[in-house]
Amino acid sequence: MNREIIVFASATVSNIACGFDIMGFSINRPGDEVVIRISPEPGVRIVKITGDDGRLPKDPLKNTAGKPLISMIEKLGLKTGLEVEIHKKMPFGSGLGSSAASAVAAAFALDRLLELNLSREELLLYAIEGEKIASGSVHADNVAPALYGGFTLIRGYNPPDVVEIDVPENIYCTVLHPDIEISTSESRSLLPREIPLKNAITQWGNAAGLIAGLLKSDYALIGRSLQDVVAEPVRTHLIPGFKEIKKAALENGALGCSISGSGPAIFALSASGGTASIVGEAMYQALIRTGLSGEIFVSQINREGPKVLYIK
Amino acid sequence: MNREIIVFASATVSNIACGFDIMGFSINRPGDEVVIRISPEPGVRIVKITGDDGRLPKDPLKNTAGKPLISMIEKLGLKTGLEVEIHKKMPFGSGLGSSAASAVAAAFALDRLLELNLSREELLLYAIEGEKIASGSVHADNVAPALYGGFTLIRGYNPPDVVEIDVPENIYCTVLHPDIEISTSESRSLLPREIPLKNAITQWGNAAGLIAGLLKSDYALIGRSLQDVVAEPVRTHLIPGFKEIKKAALENGALGCSISGSGPAIFALSASGGTASIVGEAMYQALIRTGLSGEIFVSQINREGPKVLYIK
Repeated sequence: MNREIIVFASATVSNIACGFDIMGFSINRPGDEVVIRISPEPGVRIVKITGDDGRLPKDPLKNTAGKPLISMIEKLGLKTGLEVEIHKKMPFGSGLGSSAASAVAAAFALDRLLELNLSREELLLYAIEGEKIASGSVHADNVAPALYGGFTLIRGYNPPDVVEIDVPENIYCTVLHPDIEISTSESRSLLPREIPLKNAITQWGNAAGLIAGLLKSDYALIGRSLQDVVAEPVRTHLIPGFKEIKKAALENGALGCSISGSGPAIFALSASGGTASIVGEAMYQALIRTGLSGEIFVSQINREGPKVLYIK
Repeated sequence: MNREIIVFASATVSNIACGFDIMGFSINRPGDEVVIRISPEPGVRIVKITGDDGRLPKDPLKNTAGKPLISMIEKLGLKTGLEVEIHKKMPFGSGLGSSAASAVAAAFALDRLLELNLSREELLLYAIEGEKIASGSVHADNVAPALYGGFTLIRGYNPPDVVEIDVPENIYCTVLHPDIEISTSESRSLLPREIPLKNAITQWGNAAGLIAGLLKSDYALIGRSLQDVVAEPVRTHLIPGFKEIKKAALENGALGCSISGSGPAIFALSASGGTASIVGEAMYQALIRTGLSGEIFVSQINREGPKVLYIK
C-alpha cells in the first residue's frame, strides 16, 4: 500500500481564439504539484500551500485541490484520512488554468495513490468540481486538457463530451505571461449575454476550421482560423500592449495569437520550435515597451497529461 | 471547338444542423441540368426553362444560371454568344440548393465548353453571384458543395475559404422533401439578429464536434454533434409534422436529423445504406400521417461535383 504521492499537472491554454469555452490544450510548463499523504486522522487536511502568497484557502471545501478529494472520499465511501500539500508553481489569475492544474493534480494523485482505477471521465467530473470553486462556473476547457493531455475539444456538457484532437508534431506554443493579474470572474463578466448572429457564424466557422486544420495538418488553415470575434475584442483593454504584442507575434511568423483563457497570458502558435522562440522574444520585447515585465514559455503541446513525480 | 454542352449539378444539403451558413454536402440526386450552345448572336439568351412551372425569369440578369454567365463573359472579355436551356429537375424553395445547382451547372458548363480552365475558386465566385439573386444574401454553403462535391466547410468569406472535409465511406444521407414550399428569404427572416452566447457556444461546440467526428470517422460523435439550437427551433413550425418525422428518423437508427437548408426538406445521416433506407421509409410514413405527401431520396455523399452529360 502506497503512503505518499507527488503529482505534477500542467498549465493549459483555453479558448484558443475561436474556441471559447470548448477548446484547450496542455503545455509542458509551468504547472502545479500536489502532494498527498495517507494520514491516521480521517478527512482531508491541507497542511501546506506554497507559491500562493498566502492567498489560497486551507479549508478543503473552498480549495480547488481540496474539493475534488472530499467529493471522491464521500462518493466512493473511502475511510482514508489525507494530508495534502499544494505547491503553486505558476501564477494564478494568469489565464493559464492554474486552478484546473491543482484540481486535476489532486484528483489524479488520489486515484493513483489508492489505485482506484477511475476512468478519465470520472476523474474529470471530480476535477470540474474543484475548478468550479475558482471560476464560479462549470467549464472543462482547462481541466480536460490538463487531465487528458494534448488538445481537447469539449463538444458539450451534460455529461462533458471530451474529444481528443491530434495536433501536428511541429506545432509549438509560445506563452507570454505579463506580470499583472485578471480575475476569471471579472473577465467573464465583460462578455455580453447575447452576440450578433453574424459574429456567432464567424466564430463557429473558425472553430470548425481550426479542428479541420489540426486534423488535416493544414498550417495555413490553422492560422486563418485563429481569430476571435467574441471574447478578445471585449477583453483586449485588460492587457496593456495587447495589440502590439499580437502584432509582434504575427509579424515574426506565428500562425495566430490571442488571449489565453481569460488572460492576461497571451499565447501564439507556430509551425516550428525555432519560430516559436523568435515569436516569444518579439512578444517579450513588445511587452517591455509597455513598461511591464513578464515571463515567456515555449513548449510543444504536452501530450502526457499529469505526471507522477514520486510515489512510495 | 465545342459547340454544345450539357452539365448536371446536384442538390446539396446545407446547415447540417450545427453548421448554419458554414457547411454543406452534395448528394447524388436530384439535380438540375443546364445546356449551353454557342450562338452567332452575341450575349446570353435563355431560350428554354423546364420544370419551373413558368416561374423562373428568362432575363439572364435575374436568373441564377444567367447571371454567372454574364459575369464570366464580361470579366473575361469573351465575345461568344450563348443560348442557354435550364432544366429544373428538383423542386425549388425546397431547401436543397436548387438555385445553387443551376448557378454551378451554368458556370461549370461555360468553363468546360470554352476550355477556360478557371480554378474552382474563380468558378465559385461566379456561382455565388447567381446564388445571390435567389437568396438575397452572399452565402456559399450550397454552391461550394455543389461545385466541389463532397462535404465542404466554408470557414469564412472575403474571400470564401472552402475546406474539403473527407467523410467516412459509409455515411448515407436520407432526404425527405415534403410537398410544400418555403421561401429562403422568408425562412431567413425568422432568425434572430442576436443569439444568447450560451447557445452560440453550444453551436460552435457541435460544429467543431461534427468536423472532428467526420475526420476521425467517429459515428457516435457525428450523431452527438448533429444538433441545432439556432435555426431549427425557430423554423420547425414551418414544416408540419417535423418533430414526428425527426423522431421517426432517430428511432430507426439515424445518427441525426434536421432541416436541410431553410427547409422544408429534412435530412438524416446514417452509418449505412440499409439504415438510410429504413430511416427514409419511417420518415415518409410520419409525413403521410400529417396528411402531406412528398419524396424520399437516399444517397451517399456525392464526391464528384458537377458532371458533363454531353459535349460536342
